[in-house]
Amino acid sequence: MSEVFVGIDLGGTNIKIGCFDSELRVICKTAEPTQADMGPEVVIARMARTVEKLLADSRLSLQQVTAAGVGTPGPAKYKDGVIIHSTNMPKFKNVPIRRMLGEKLGKTVVLENDANAACWGEYAVGAGKGVDDMVFFTLGTGIGGGIISNGKLLQGCGGNAAELGHIIIYPNGRRCNCGQRGCVEAYASANSTAKRAGEALAAGAKSSLKEVLEKKGEITCKDVYEHLAAGDTLAKQITDETAEALAMICINLLHTVEPQRIVFAGGMIAAGDLLLSRIRHYFKEHIWSLKAEPVEICFATLGEDAGIIGAAALALQAHRQGGL
Amino acid sequence: MSEVFVGIDLGGTNIKIGCFDSELRVICKTAEPTQADMGPEVVIARMARTVEKLLADSRLSLQQVTAAGVGTPGPAKYKDGVIIHSTNMPKFKNVPIRRMLGEKLGKTVVLENDANAACWGEYAVGAGKGVDDMVFFTLGTGIGGGIISNGKLLQGCGGNAAELGHIIIYPNGRRCNCGQRGCVEAYASANSTAKRAGEALAAGAKSSLKEVLEKKGEITCKDVYEHLAAGDTLAKQITDETAEALAMICINLLHTVEPQRIVFAGGMIAAGDLLLSRIRHYFKEHIWSLKAEPVEICFATLGEDAGIIGAAALALQAHRQGGL
Repeated sequence: MSEVFVGIDLGGTNIKIGCFDSELRVICKTAEPTQADMGPEVVIARMARTVEKLLADSRLSLQQVTAAGVGTPGPAKYKDGVIIHSTNMPKFKNVPIRRMLGEKLGKTVVLENDANAACWGEYAVGAGKGVDDMVFFTLGTGIGGGIISNGKLLQGCGGNAAELGHIIIYPNGRRCNCGQRGCVEAYASANSTAKRAGEALAAGAKSSLKEVLEKKGEITCKDVYEHLAAGDTLAKQITDETAEALAMICINLLHTVEPQRIVFAGGMIAAGDLLLSRIRHYFKEHIWSLKAEPVEICFATLGEDAGIIGAAALALQAHRQGGL
Repeated sequence: MSEVFVGIDLGGTNIKIGCFDSELRVICKTAEPTQADMGPEVVIARMARTVEKLLADSRLSLQQVTAAGVGTPGPAKYKDGVIIHSTNMPKFKNVPIRRMLGEKLGKTVVLENDANAACWGEYAVGAGKGVDDMVFFTLGTGIGGGIISNGKLLQGCGGNAAELGHIIIYPNGRRCNCGQRGCVEAYASANSTAKRAGEALAAGAKSSLKEVLEKKGEITCKDVYEHLAAGDTLAKQITDETAEALAMICINLLHTVEPQRIVFAGGMIAAGDLLLSRIRHYFKEHIWSLKAEPVEICFATLGEDAGIIGAAALALQAHRQGGL
């Protein structure tokens, strides 16, 4: 193995780690609880030990590693390699993770927003392969995003571009956790989808979901899509609202960065064509008539590994460009 | 004069032409009616003659010209230098203007969207000087836009990025000329501002603008801003709606491309601080609370020359980068 690139996805709940060859093929991977309450020193030291152990299990050593990439939620000073703070890791304040992990591994480390890393993974070897302009959404608990423009990740002046979940689509609409009103995240994330379904049931809507609510005491997004597949009318209506919100944001991103492809990722794409076909439907319904828009709207292909693949791919790219 | 760069702004009504030195200082400039109904062959030939005459008047010749840039509204294949069609120049269909003008001048010509060219002008020597990430809006009859990301014009996959006037801010809102509903252009352009004022008067709003309407039979955007300056309540309300729409789009662009500066240009900025302060007000009111957003919102400084300066600057940049 001539070159090995390590990709790390540091989330509030789990840390995922993968080792890849220079073609971004996975050699080995693992995941473990973050235990963020133990603080950055402990977590980062453990992270380095896990990388070493993972390599050893595959009869590799740190010596063979060229560089490592870490994806983590913002806000962060990505260029400087510093996590400013983290909603899900309250003890991570002004953590110079690039330097800390770099010292432990003895390797150069690049830091990137987790959604950007996943975007770069899909762009490098997934659903974005072959295009130079791509918009990427992760539909999970919240909504994250990434933008590739002319073959490069769009960073913005502070490395915080593509906070696509917080684009306002319905001014003065639903309150978002970020403090704004009407963000797409407040309508089309997994949490918001479940919440809207719960509200509709509370308002007396008829639905097979009612039984779920009575049994479990709550509705999840997964429930909504399961009952959608079974033909439930309320689930259909909730999905339609989600799809229309996502179509609106596709239109706005088209007029902003003109991607050739728009890729949706995250747990919610398990809804499959019942969701995708509705996004495409509303896109066609609302898009301008000035000219045909051949943008492709599709689902991601790398699944949960997109983050670690992308983080490794960013380390590889930085190495190739002499940025390391 | 060692190097001269020609900048041309080809609009439906007028053609503006300027000659600039390598510091983008204006040497000479002129404007003439486009007379687009005479067709592209005639217009482009006259354009070339005007350039030659303009140079001769300043005791310069075509020999001293290094390259020329042309800004014109889309849709066009800008990389290929071909105007596809033009709402205001119906006879301009599939016109390979880069080749045609290039042959007449004996120089290399670059073609760019007119709003992008003006954006580049402000970035090079105007209100965007000193930043690497900037969003630019022209508030005129319609709303155009440009985006500079990491020191480069964001082009998109087909050269039609930054159609910022057609970002939807109020879904299912006012009908826009483009066929969509709720575009920012349908609220905050000069035309839409005047239209909203007229509608409010028709609905019985009290205002000093009523007299203007009775006298002239119509309200212009200029009227609205004149009566705003005089303290008219309706003009204030109309301006507030405009400012709120523009603030919404500032927030959405911030979350998409994270500019350091957002620059507004076009006839409407004559409204001055009465408009600008309200855009800033609504931006603060609606922006998230996750982190402070130090983005500067300001007005352009180059006036109507931004287009020709920018077109010349793009020719200069392409020349420097060896793209010519």
